Amino acid sequence: MKKIIFLRHGESTWNKENKFTGWTDVDLSKKGLLEAKDAGIVLRDNSFNFDIAFTSVLKRAIKTLNIVLDELDLNWIPTEKDWRLNERHYGSLQGLNKSDTAKKFGEKQVKIWRRSYDIKPPELSDDDIRLPSKEKKYENIPSNLLPKTESLKITVERVIPFWEEKIIPLLNQNKRIIISAHGNSIRALVKYLDNVSEKNILELNIPTGIPLVYEFDQNLNPLKNYYLGDQEKILSEINNVKNQGIK
Amino acid sequence: MKKIIFLRHGESTWNKENKFTGWTDVDLSKKGLLEAKDAGIVLRDNSFNFDIAFTSVLKRAIKTLNIVLDELDLNWIPTEKDWRLNERHYGSLQGLNKSDTAKKFGEKQVKIWRRSYDIKPPELSDDDIRLPSKEKKYENIPSNLLPKTESLKITVERVIPFWEEKIIPLLNQNKRIIISAHGNSIRALVKYLDNVSEKNILELNIPTGIPLVYEFDQNLNPLKNYYLGDQEKILSEINNVKNQGIK
Repeated sequence: MKKIIFLRHGESTWNKENKFTGWTDVDLSKKGLLEAKDAGIVLRDNSFNFDIAFTSVLKRAIKTLNIVLDELDLNWIPTEKDWRLNERHYGSLQGLNKSDTAKKFGEKQVKIWRRSYDIKPPELSDDDIRLPSKEKKYENIPSNLLPKTESLKITVERVIPFWEEKIIPLLNQNKRIIISAHGNSIRALVKYLDNVSEKNILELNIPTGIPLVYEFDQNLNPLKNYYLGDQEKILSEINNVKNQGIK
Repeated sequence: MKKIIFLRHGESTWNKENKFTGWTDVDLSKKGLLEAKDAGIVLRDNSFNFDIAFTSVLKRAIKTLNIVLDELDLNWIPTEKDWRLNERHYGSLQGLNKSDTAKKFGEKQVKIWRRSYDIKPPELSDDDIRLPSKEKKYENIPSNLLPKTESLKITVERVIPFWEEKIIPLLNQNKRIIISAHGNSIRALVKYLDNVSEKNILELNIPTGIPLVYEFDQNLNPLKNYYLGDQEKILSEINNVKNQGIK
């Protein structure tokens, strides 16, 4: 049986403040640290083991992964950091909270950004110091690949090449993989793997710190997927994300 | 100017109990966690920046590195874990403290192991579950390379190929590198880089959690080296290691 685990990082300081985060490199909150530890414990209790780990280049995902690997006594496994696992880039909405955004752009416009698959929030302007092309972290990435904003569609378009290039060869070698990532990069993977419609993927909410298991047959067709842990608690977490409105 | 930083992990739980640790994968003590954080702070205060990090596959070095990178806001840089940076393997002495060892083997013999460059402590027996060749962590390493015990000479012989294969090409590209490792793997590198005699290298004590800077000319000849931080405190740390007797 081929398996992979997707894990959305624990709560960040900006999740807590209900801000659009995107590529802003904010830290885990105290609750987020505990969620990461709990993710490690539930993986250990279910006897999960890994050969290799992947994470985005954002510290909330990296630190979640480090905590999980420590809990599993797997600090030593190779860990690869890839920008294509980053959260969806929210353009100039990054740093604004829900009510700031409604005030600035109107409720109707905010709903469009939140509910559409292929409409992008306003771009960062060319003199914005937050542009990925100006960050040291992305200096080895061709600048034409780096976003100034992203729709979920664009996020999907960068995550799939990562999956094809990095993950498929390893699954074919029966490597056991854990991916620590973000609400929208995991959504992108789920959309691709389960062929979810553009409409339905927007209704899918990924809770923080809950390992999501995907099982595949020998041809890498997904057989089933499930969250690890207390199912009632998980359902309530999923509803929290939904009501929060901002991923 | 080409530069590299060597960092011995913070105090481990077994450093504290004065036990031969070697490849035993013990955790950092509370003091060790603080030492790692202090190492990150002194690197930040001295404006150090890195492109890539290396560590052994032992958690005390990995966690020290993670703490340092977090302090520097460099969680995102690539990190490679290599067994050849591990501590010297202490064979069947691993897990014994100084007085246990003296009781079991005699003071005279213990002195020989501690003071000689090429004499190995007793090997782990072939049925010992602690043999690296039986550990999952080393399953991809050819078993003829994995030790049952090591002299400092053998440690040097495995660390140099790591240096030549991994580090030299990166220094030639002017990459800024940090290596998180152990008392004896750092000794091995210092012996090689500064051409220290077999006798003198045994007198050289590497303190925990103090960044050791090496500067090189364009042909990778070492120009100078120094510890970062309060020099008086560092001297006292070096003497502590010396008096402790067990690295």
